[in-house]
Amino acid sequence: MPNIQDVARYAHVGAATVSRVLNGTGYVKEETRARIMNAIEELNYTPNEMARNLFFKKTGIVAVIVPELGHPFFSDLVNHIEVALTGYDYQMMVCNTYYEQNYELRYLDMLNRQIVDGIIFGSHTLNTDDFRATKRPIVAIDREMGEDIPCITADHEQGGLLAARALAMAGCKKVLQLGGSTKDFLVSTPSNIRNSVFSSYMKEHGIECIDYPTEWNKFGFDYTQIVINKVMDEYPDIDGIFGTDIAAMAALKEASLRDIRVPDELKIVSYDGTPMTALTHPMLTCVVQPVKEIGQESVRVMMELIKGERPKEHLIKKAVFLREGGSV
Amino acid sequence: MPNIQDVARYAHVGAATVSRVLNGTGYVKEETRARIMNAIEELNYTPNEMARNLFFKKTGIVAVIVPELGHPFFSDLVNHIEVALTGYDYQMMVCNTYYEQNYELRYLDMLNRQIVDGIIFGSHTLNTDDFRATKRPIVAIDREMGEDIPCITADHEQGGLLAARALAMAGCKKVLQLGGSTKDFLVSTPSNIRNSVFSSYMKEHGIECIDYPTEWNKFGFDYTQIVINKVMDEYPDIDGIFGTDIAAMAALKEASLRDIRVPDELKIVSYDGTPMTALTHPMLTCVVQPVKEIGQESVRVMMELIKGERPKEHLIKKAVFLREGGSV
Repeated sequence: MPNIQDVARYAHVGAATVSRVLNGTGYVKEETRARIMNAIEELNYTPNEMARNLFFKKTGIVAVIVPELGHPFFSDLVNHIEVALTGYDYQMMVCNTYYEQNYELRYLDMLNRQIVDGIIFGSHTLNTDDFRATKRPIVAIDREMGEDIPCITADHEQGGLLAARALAMAGCKKVLQLGGSTKDFLVSTPSNIRNSVFSSYMKEHGIECIDYPTEWNKFGFDYTQIVINKVMDEYPDIDGIFGTDIAAMAALKEASLRDIRVPDELKIVSYDGTPMTALTHPMLTCVVQPVKEIGQESVRVMMELIKGERPKEHLIKKAVFLREGGSV
Repeated sequence: MPNIQDVARYAHVGAATVSRVLNGTGYVKEETRARIMNAIEELNYTPNEMARNLFFKKTGIVAVIVPELGHPFFSDLVNHIEVALTGYDYQMMVCNTYYEQNYELRYLDMLNRQIVDGIIFGSHTLNTDDFRATKRPIVAIDREMGEDIPCITADHEQGGLLAARALAMAGCKKVLQLGGSTKDFLVSTPSNIRNSVFSSYMKEHGIECIDYPTEWNKFGFDYTQIVINKVMDEYPDIDGIFGTDIAAMAALKEASLRDIRVPDELKIVSYDGTPMTALTHPMLTCVVQPVKEIGQESVRVMMELIKGERPKEHLIKKAVFLREGGSV
């Protein structure tokens, strides 16, 4: 198989010039470029990407780390990130952490050893010092990982407010929100702010609000159903619930099983707005996170970092909106 | 930064011996190994995985190709594949094809150029000749890609039978199944067999069965809702529906909107059994695909192929089961 040296010899140029043409970097005279392209064709040369990447210290791969790919929000997010990366001719590696710190360390190590060009963290449990030690490209989604690491997030403050307003306007007197306790959180995530905004709004408007804590970083289908069941047992007199899509669907089901009419007796607002929320009846009223925009923006910022640019903004907030269904 | 040569020099051995120790291959005397480990520690040497992979012509990466990561079945599948690959110390690259043939060609090209060690196809639109041309590791999930390519699939024959029986036993007289038409299919997939088994069973038992065609490879949330809406308009007198989870959820919603009682007036069986089906009320009666086992098996077979073994079986079928809910 011919290599870059053979192409260079055939075209009477240096290997560096061939490489400039292959990578579209630097100026090469049109006539020289034509001679090189001809040599590539004549010799039927295919650049060995691994060797080329080794030379340029680029792998063309970005790793994405999420807690659980099976979760509707994260699968949607990873989906959009993949499409955006493909647009930049990048490949995506995906890792489920299942909240295991050693997975994160492993990928961080891969980043430092240049097996991937960057990491987009949609989850993290490590201390931020671990991340700050590396100078390589890291972008965080919904996670505060320190000054030097850009963070892309939905406007969760607005999200909490939209949910609170929807329930208050509908006449709720006693509401419950899931994930309301932040005291046990090991890691600061901007998405928690929706819960404090929600609480404050209710307090200001004289509406009783129960902050029902959920275990940190737990939001799978089974766990959430168990929690909702408990909630409905413990607080049979609530008239409003605010929780993630899975929690809201579980609440809708539980209400139906207990003959509680939604929205007449119980109003539900969900957070995230993943596609499955459109398939319930009544359709869930949701605060929709702009998952596609978040995915695209995280990739755009990652590409800047890979090019060696310094991040222009530390925190990038994307607008959320309320999609009205029939559950409020 | 020290390289493998530095380690070799420091330990007074050849680079090949260091490499044997690093990769755990071949015999190295205990005393020599200790000297090498000491050199690695003294020099603070980190092997450059890209260089090492280049040397061994292994990348430690398997690519997984699916139509849409945002689809609940595929996100669940990819989730389990990732966990299984991690168990073998492999990384996963994921690609959404969105049914674009050029993406598949691109990854096939990456496989041939040894950027990935293997590809697990959960989707394909190309002619199987394109795949057969490569001699590198390919595993197919639910896709017949030719004699040489192992195919892992759920037992869709059993799946179709379980669904048909559930509806027949419940007394249905006129049922409709989605995706019933296979005439336009470009690609043969074992999952289509459930539809023919379903039809045949109904015919044998004197139950009217409408095979409602869906566009090939289209199964997103929006499209499915439109189709279900049309179906319910065109066939108001059906008393049973069989379709994927998304279709079944859409049918449940549509029935509720039209005041059709499930299961009294309309019985629904869904196919796949992804987690969201447990959150409906009535809970959907599902044929559950063993997604975790399918993911694990595809990785196990892939690892054999990467080791250079020939596939032991061409077609590996995993058992499905009926999870009874309240929709039949």
